[in-house]
Amino acid sequence: MNPTLIDVLRGDTIESRHTGALAIVDASGRVHTAQGDVDRPVFPRSAVKLLQALPLVASGAADAFSLTDEELSLACASHSGEPAHVATAAGVLAKLGLDASALECGTQWPGREPVLRAMAARGDVATPLHNNCSGKHSGFVCVACLMARQAGAEPAEFARGYVAAEHPVMREVSAALSAATGVDVEHAPRGIDGCSIPTFALPLRALALAFARAGTGQGLSDAHAHAARRLRRAVTAAPFMVGGTDRFDTVVMQALGEQLFCKIGAEGVYCAALPALGLGVALKIDDGAARAAETAMAAVAAALLPGLDDAQHRLLAGLHHLTLRNWRGTEVGRLQPAAPLAAALGGVLNPT
Amino acid sequence: MNPTLIDVLRGDTIESRHTGALAIVDASGRVHTAQGDVDRPVFPRSAVKLLQALPLVASGAADAFSLTDEELSLACASHSGEPAHVATAAGVLAKLGLDASALECGTQWPGREPVLRAMAARGDVATPLHNNCSGKHSGFVCVACLMARQAGAEPAEFARGYVAAEHPVMREVSAALSAATGVDVEHAPRGIDGCSIPTFALPLRALALAFARAGTGQGLSDAHAHAARRLRRAVTAAPFMVGGTDRFDTVVMQALGEQLFCKIGAEGVYCAALPALGLGVALKIDDGAARAAETAMAAVAAALLPGLDDAQHRLLAGLHHLTLRNWRGTEVGRLQPAAPLAAALGGVLNPT
Repeated sequence: MNPTLIDVLRGDTIESRHTGALAIVDASGRVHTAQGDVDRPVFPRSAVKLLQALPLVASGAADAFSLTDEELSLACASHSGEPAHVATAAGVLAKLGLDASALECGTQWPGREPVLRAMAARGDVATPLHNNCSGKHSGFVCVACLMARQAGAEPAEFARGYVAAEHPVMREVSAALSAATGVDVEHAPRGIDGCSIPTFALPLRALALAFARAGTGQGLSDAHAHAARRLRRAVTAAPFMVGGTDRFDTVVMQALGEQLFCKIGAEGVYCAALPALGLGVALKIDDGAARAAETAMAAVAAALLPGLDDAQHRLLAGLHHLTLRNWRGTEVGRLQPAAPLAAALGGVLNPT
Repeated sequence: MNPTLIDVLRGDTIESRHTGALAIVDASGRVHTAQGDVDRPVFPRSAVKLLQALPLVASGAADAFSLTDEELSLACASHSGEPAHVATAAGVLAKLGLDASALECGTQWPGREPVLRAMAARGDVATPLHNNCSGKHSGFVCVACLMARQAGAEPAEFARGYVAAEHPVMREVSAALSAATGVDVEHAPRGIDGCSIPTFALPLRALALAFARAGTGQGLSDAHAHAARRLRRAVTAAPFMVGGTDRFDTVVMQALGEQLFCKIGAEGVYCAALPALGLGVALKIDDGAARAAETAMAAVAAALLPGLDDAQHRLLAGLHHLTLRNWRGTEVGRLQPAAPLAAALGGVLNPT
């Protein structure tokens, strides 16, 4: 059993608990922190979108289609389907002479209540552009179109079926994942992700290593090291695109800039790079809860990042000791790091 | 640590796990099944709405204001804020000469995407009537109005502040909870619920006992036994009111009728009565996940209820082995009872 990482309190009583595992390693694979079973394979889901976008830059597709920082940030995103996200994804496809019909991620209404409400009130209808993965998929289609150009094939026809593991685009994506993590994903447990591409279960230790590498460039090919740097900088320059209004990744990266790249994945996964420290982070909440993954990620950032200013410190404190309010706005409880996580991080986490 | 009750699979790999505890007892307190720690206090939240509604009937308020089955079912509900729920809550308040301003549950937009979308598309704005607890709160206001009538007080003025633990209405509600569970809630850990009333942390063993009593009448006062029977029958007669479109409680009670009363609570709690078997059920998923609480509840019902017809069996099988699909409708995984839960329930659970 993994240790409890996050406690959920109502009043002063623990109401719920989230167990999980956490790996923090450097680019050589040396373990900085390990809590729980960091060798059990977990599906990283969308937490590895930056790694899945490496071929977009490394192939030359990002340059060939003149992708902007906003468009590259969206390629790493699980966005909220807000108008700017939808327009940006549509813009990438327009550069390719394509439209939403090229996307194979499926149609998704935004999951966040105010975004959904605004969309319904406008009379909008969900399309694949609203899918939280539409930016990543637009990036895949970019790679397919460059491959088609090089092969003298018709782009839309070449791109079709790009979500399948054996498609040339997805082979590049899987190869990037294998190279960064040091695990041959061909031999990893495989599932189908929410957006229909393959997802491979990998040890947290290997995922953390991949993000230490993505943050430093060490252990990556020159092309992937350059691509990782460019993608991180794009997300830092356009953090709204990677999430959206009030989204954890957007809010934290807006405040912290290049000190931290972090990305949530479905079912309670977080991956992060702390480039200046040379560290990569990967964590999984056993039960899949996003609320606990975010709280734990905030705790890791607060404990590890040196030289935070007051505003950055307060922002992270409010996220790793998250006040819960009821429908009347009354404070009813909070999420906070449980003792094993606080101890693993040096015990220096305070609510304010 | 509690055992794993529910596994979440992606492909054939366990992606996430939900631990928890389960108590099934009869009206004398004899344990039929116990998994995990059934003596640790847990906040039952909305899973005890039937018990919280006992004073509504026992006080005479339900008769005094001629409440219908729909209205009594709504008093036990965590509803989805659909038009029929909102109209029914407004109708109860109209019988009292009051309106939504009497409710102290706070304003809540419906959490379910299609309901929220339809509401926003209609241009509706959330009010306290849309709060999932508006039926329960309308019931509290009924009790307050009867008390005011008996005391010669002005109803709206008497009702004001009814969510506070020391208000005469809430004292009756707490007394009903103490009587049914056999635990003096005055000495239990206390929190504030999502709808602003007190919630008391109680052992699953005591909660299961309360529902065995509510299902059989044994161990309750005559007034509470009658009230429990009337409320259960009202929910059976009007199951849409207790939840809504595609909601677990509504769907299951529509199919099973008086064989099962079940009610979900926030943070992964379920309580149920199986009157014909004389059993009560209470379970808590440690991490608070509703998906796991529902899957476990379906497993309990399928394993315990005798004489299910084919349609009932298939319905429950589809809920305790729940297929997960992605945005394109592709089957990507499933929720299912983990080995300890399946074993505790006799190992007879099959996916179809």
